[in-house]
Amino acid sequence: MTLKLYLDFLSQPSRALYIFFKINKVPFELSQVALRKGEHLSEEFKTNLNRFQKVPFIHDGDFRLTESVAIIRYVSKVHNIDNNWYPKETKAQARVDEYLEWQHNNTRAFCALYFQRKWLFPLLTGRQTSPETMQKYEDNMLACLDQIENIWLADTPYLCGDRISVADIFAACEIEQPRVAGFDPIKGRPVLSAWMNRVRSEASPFYEEAHAVLNKLAEKGGKAKL
Amino acid sequence: MTLKLYLDFLSQPSRALYIFFKINKVPFELSQVALRKGEHLSEEFKTNLNRFQKVPFIHDGDFRLTESVAIIRYVSKVHNIDNNWYPKETKAQARVDEYLEWQHNNTRAFCALYFQRKWLFPLLTGRQTSPETMQKYEDNMLACLDQIENIWLADTPYLCGDRISVADIFAACEIEQPRVAGFDPIKGRPVLSAWMNRVRSEASPFYEEAHAVLNKLAEKGGKAKL
Repeated sequence: MTLKLYLDFLSQPSRALYIFFKINKVPFELSQVALRKGEHLSEEFKTNLNRFQKVPFIHDGDFRLTESVAIIRYVSKVHNIDNNWYPKETKAQARVDEYLEWQHNNTRAFCALYFQRKWLFPLLTGRQTSPETMQKYEDNMLACLDQIENIWLADTPYLCGDRISVADIFAACEIEQPRVAGFDPIKGRPVLSAWMNRVRSEASPFYEEAHAVLNKLAEKGGKAKL
Repeated sequence: MTLKLYLDFLSQPSRALYIFFKINKVPFELSQVALRKGEHLSEEFKTNLNRFQKVPFIHDGDFRLTESVAIIRYVSKVHNIDNNWYPKETKAQARVDEYLEWQHNNTRAFCALYFQRKWLFPLLTGRQTSPETMQKYEDNMLACLDQIENIWLADTPYLCGDRISVADIFAACEIEQPRVAGFDPIKGRPVLSAWMNRVRSEASPFYEEAHAVLNKLAEKGGKAKL
């Protein structure tokens, strides 16, 4: 029975999982969930698909698993994953784990909040976030991008060492997101900019595939409609 | 060379690591960092101890690691950890991983934000959070505790199955925190209440040791000083 991956390409960890699965030739059946249509909010979805009503998640036969990072680790044990994407060696794996845990209340939270408050919520509700609140969200995101530039990428070409790993995929997918809201994440950040180019190139062509919808929205510089 | 664990007992994941290490007889040297005195904010701390200026973290010889969940996984590989606390079997480990990832933007974020805004920041800055903002933080925390009560503990005595795991320790340590701000997390939640008692009892006496400072503050019902 083929593993089923449920995702929405406008969800950052959904894109990261798609790229990780494709690069590592993990066989899967793709099932798209349109969050913008509220497909995840029904009782039927909650009962039959995912009790937490979010994406991404997997069904591997009877085994249902949510949380993208937990999925990465599970898949790395049951499929053949190239060692650089999720290392088997204890310390190298711990370095990748360190970023995957750090991201939740940094890259994941701050880039997503900026995107949601600047672009998504106004579109869905017709209400703008106040400039003072928006400034706070922007400041948090900028501080986080500075940490990527100055700490994570201080000594190595990738977040967790000399070779690309799944941490780079997760980070890049988060940093792409505020582009939809008209924000340019690489402006004034030469290190982050060069790293983004390396990640896009090494994860090609799956990176572009996963970002096709996002890139179309981003082209409109924050003025796109869902 | 003994592993060094740096922590502050007023930090939730610090307490969780302390309990996990003690229960599993992981040999370690304890080094306390007083966050309330800003000991983590110096350049010297950043350079010599932890580039992210947070706790908890470990130094295992030359290997420095931050992020409590990454530390759990690392320690589980280099020390002998009882299988129920962090299972070796793939699906059982994935279930525990699922909670450890889920918590970041749920239990971890919402219980901590309530504690910070209601109790810590007013104490440090002399400024109160507005009632409307406080209500939002409280609503988020209540919704999260409802998910613990109604989803995570719906069918099993522990978060990830029939036996206690490190996920229960992490969750309980987070849920203890808003007690300092005068909030009673078990009120109206019989399932969560019974589960908290089981966790406290199974992690005894280390659970009480780790919560000694917090319990003293909580006794004053939100009126304690640091």
